[in-house]
Amino acid sequence: MAQILKGKEVVDSLVAGMKKDVETLKAKGIVPALGIIRVGERADDISYEKGVTKRCDTAGVVVKQYVLPVDAPQRQLLDVINTVNIDKNVHGVLLFRPLPKHIDSNAIRAALLPAKDVDGITDGSLAGVFANTGLGFPPCTAEACMTVLAHYGIDITGRRVTVVGRSLVIGRPVAMMLMHKNATITICHTRTKDLPSVVREGEIVIAAAGQSEFLTGDFFREGQIVIDVGIHVKSDGSLCGDVKFAEAEPIVKAITPVPGGVGGVTTCVTIKHVIEAAKKAAV
Amino acid sequence: MAQILKGKEVVDSLVAGMKKDVETLKAKGIVPALGIIRVGERADDISYEKGVTKRCDTAGVVVKQYVLPVDAPQRQLLDVINTVNIDKNVHGVLLFRPLPKHIDSNAIRAALLPAKDVDGITDGSLAGVFANTGLGFPPCTAEACMTVLAHYGIDITGRRVTVVGRSLVIGRPVAMMLMHKNATITICHTRTKDLPSVVREGEIVIAAAGQSEFLTGDFFREGQIVIDVGIHVKSDGSLCGDVKFAEAEPIVKAITPVPGGVGGVTTCVTIKHVIEAAKKAAV
Repeated sequence: MAQILKGKEVVDSLVAGMKKDVETLKAKGIVPALGIIRVGERADDISYEKGVTKRCDTAGVVVKQYVLPVDAPQRQLLDVINTVNIDKNVHGVLLFRPLPKHIDSNAIRAALLPAKDVDGITDGSLAGVFANTGLGFPPCTAEACMTVLAHYGIDITGRRVTVVGRSLVIGRPVAMMLMHKNATITICHTRTKDLPSVVREGEIVIAAAGQSEFLTGDFFREGQIVIDVGIHVKSDGSLCGDVKFAEAEPIVKAITPVPGGVGGVTTCVTIKHVIEAAKKAAV
Repeated sequence: MAQILKGKEVVDSLVAGMKKDVETLKAKGIVPALGIIRVGERADDISYEKGVTKRCDTAGVVVKQYVLPVDAPQRQLLDVINTVNIDKNVHGVLLFRPLPKHIDSNAIRAALLPAKDVDGITDGSLAGVFANTGLGFPPCTAEACMTVLAHYGIDITGRRVTVVGRSLVIGRPVAMMLMHKNATITICHTRTKDLPSVVREGEIVIAAAGQSEFLTGDFFREGQIVIDVGIHVKSDGSLCGDVKFAEAEPIVKAITPVPGGVGGVTTCVTIKHVIEAAKKAAV
């Protein structure tokens, strides 16, 4: 029976810390605010927006929405970016992607100030997580993994960690963050040979393959700690992760569940970044 | 007996290509130029400067020197950076580091245009190598490793690669470049446990530990390809790498020598970047 690394505990601890920080800021006359920029009316975006807004309310963070029609010209989106860049009352920005195809995503990314890039999408934030300079903010899911490990007192120094997935939103940045904490990291992907045996090498496994229940029982061995980053909707409407939980859980030492694992922590990290941005801006 | 992956062959091939490119550019009225910025009179810097200048001459690339006294104020160095940034006749910039302690290295890095950053030191270049977007230029030693592997027709896709060292000038960027070419990478460092066994896992090994003859015979097994990035001066005045060559060579399949390996290729890559920068500026 593995230890279940529940997200709720981590979230509760984060929220308590955030509430305190927001109080301190408000006493100084600063109300941390997140600007949410959405182009179009995609259901996923709107659903995520609702979740973030609810959590922001709980933490005492204000949300300002900037909604553009799906056919808005790039110029208009750039104007919005410039508006939030210069607005001292907006501390962090969440921009839903992918953007419509007529918009150059790189031009938009380049326009956003790294200091307000609470979702870790700018080149400044990417350089920051690669070089460990603290520039910008790391992608929230990557930091959520680190937060879960830290919350449960899981030591990272000198441990072998296998990261499955090399995306810029999770695989690559979490590998760098683990390395900065002295893990020996191996990054796997679609072209990795004999993937199960490479995953079994890891004392800690970060499953960020982006495929529903991709990591089956044969990927695991006794003693491993498994962080499952995936969230997928099964045909019966229930949620699952990148790991086949029912097969992995009896084998490994500890594992995050889906739902109830990393997902909720990620939303919290976004809001935590807004508060951190507000703190920095206040100095 | 291992195959010796000599740098000279690679250099000759690079130089031939560069000469051709420079001719094409000159026919369009463009003379590629490298700006070398040096603060102080450190012997290492001056020696490297001589080597680069000589190779630039061979390739047909002009060198412009900007030499400041060791006590030059930061403002003066920023002025030089701005001068080269706006000078259309300087295509690439090499800035010797470490800078004197009274100068904020990050402020200087931030001032240089990524488009002229042929040595891969700016946040733009670091984000480019991390995200694989082509922004700026990768650090030259990292690209030199890739060039040696490509020249000798060594396939990377799906191979296990162990990188020993996690510095920003070589370990981290070369790991990313190998991953972008579909290698399964493992990054080792001072806190890695049982380092020899992790190195033996690699089908390709990049030795960038920064320590003289640190990788002894027990780090290796049959069939491995070893790229040695180190250059150290031994007490008898001779040069050696990060690998104990005499012990590794009888075991492995192929290995770069020191001297005569990656070092000369690195200088060539710097100059190749200047020519690439000149090409891009000409578009």
